[in-house]
Amino acid sequence: MERFNAFSHEEAVNVLYEWCACRSWAERVANARPFENSSTLRDLARQVWWRETTVAGWLEAFLGHPKIGDLEDLHRKFHGKAEDSEQAAALATNDQKVLQELANYNRAYDEKFGHIFIICAAGKSAETVLSEIKKRLPNTPHMELANAAGEQMKITEARLHNFLTSRGMAETPSMQRRTGQIHSHLVQGMCFCRHLSAVELAAKFVLLID
Amino acid sequence: MERFNAFSHEEAVNVLYEWCACRSWAERVANARPFENSSTLRDLARQVWWRETTVAGWLEAFLGHPKIGDLEDLHRKFHGKAEDSEQAAALATNDQKVLQELANYNRAYDEKFGHIFIICAAGKSAETVLSEIKKRLPNTPHMELANAAGEQMKITEARLHNFLTSRGMAETPSMQRRTGQIHSHLVQGMCFCRHLSAVELAAKFVLLID
Repeated sequence: MERFNAFSHEEAVNVLYEWCACRSWAERVANARPFENSSTLRDLARQVWWRETTVAGWLEAFLGHPKIGDLEDLHRKFHGKAEDSEQAAALATNDQKVLQELANYNRAYDEKFGHIFIICAAGKSAETVLSEIKKRLPNTPHMELANAAGEQMKITEARLHNFLTSRGMAETPSMQRRTGQIHSHLVQGMCFCRHLSAVELAAKFVLLID
Repeated sequence: MERFNAFSHEEAVNVLYEWCACRSWAERVANARPFENSSTLRDLARQVWWRETTVAGWLEAFLGHPKIGDLEDLHRKFHGKAEDSEQAAALATNDQKVLQELANYNRAYDEKFGHIFIICAAGKSAETVLSEIKKRLPNTPHMELANAAGEQMKITEARLHNFLTSRGMAETPSMQRRTGQIHSHLVQGMCFCRHLSAVELAAKFVLLID
């Protein structure tokens, strides 16, 4: 936390923006430094997200997750490839039908709500994610906005936690990038994020997914 | 209603867009014609607004109301001027302090929520509007989004009602404009809309405000 407090304003904003791609949120949280510990940072991050961030700011954060369009993308992300094994997806499934259905639901969700399906997918199978999107699709846009914002905050908190507990915490953001931090992998609307230090990478890709 | 049903698609969309400046909403409602009567039109308009319009679509409609910035604007709109007496505001107040406070609250509201204060001001005094904005300002953005959407729908319904019951209903939109329909007057975030037929104009500005 000391290092995070010591970052320049720009460095802090950049780190925060990687957790949650809403500029005003990142600026406000950076401005609230120094934090005593991770709890006070998390509480402030929540407060700013839920009470001080505009709806347009939430949509900005959702749009920060790139779309991945077709079944091929889903396959690549779920199964990984030899040449991009560090991107091997954590949600493993061999069920072609599940992936196809997920692709269809993601498309329908995006069409209805105007933003991708946001879910904190840590520890969830593709089948679970599919069942979640089926449950959420009939919601009104206003209800679903709150769900998506809640999932985005879970993702943000997981990224925050990973950042503070990883070796990367002892480094500046630019150093972290050089030492192999992997972030913001996205699977057609489901947000995967892995912050891996060099040590974690060496340890056979112990993935932290948010 | 027959005339509304008989409008070209473009004419219908233009009329609907004047009631509620959300393109996808106007398109969907226009596509749902013919309507049997005003109730079926209103029900469909509500259904599309609450269940099928994205949050970005709501924000688009809110942004359709131009901002009016300073105290001078408020005065002009509340009190009217000889040379633009047709714009004489319906909410009358002589209380400079109320107008100043309203201007300040409107600014604070816009800053917090990222969109203007939407209220269906029909029959409300400036003091009532001020008291409403004071109540709503502490809300979370998500709560306030629903409030603003509800007020927008009230405005839309009032415009719809005025349109269907006015002489203008027997005319095309372009004819209505020529015969002096006045619409979409805005007072620093409060939405005023008066659909006045030529007859109503002649009747000493009996204002219908939504």
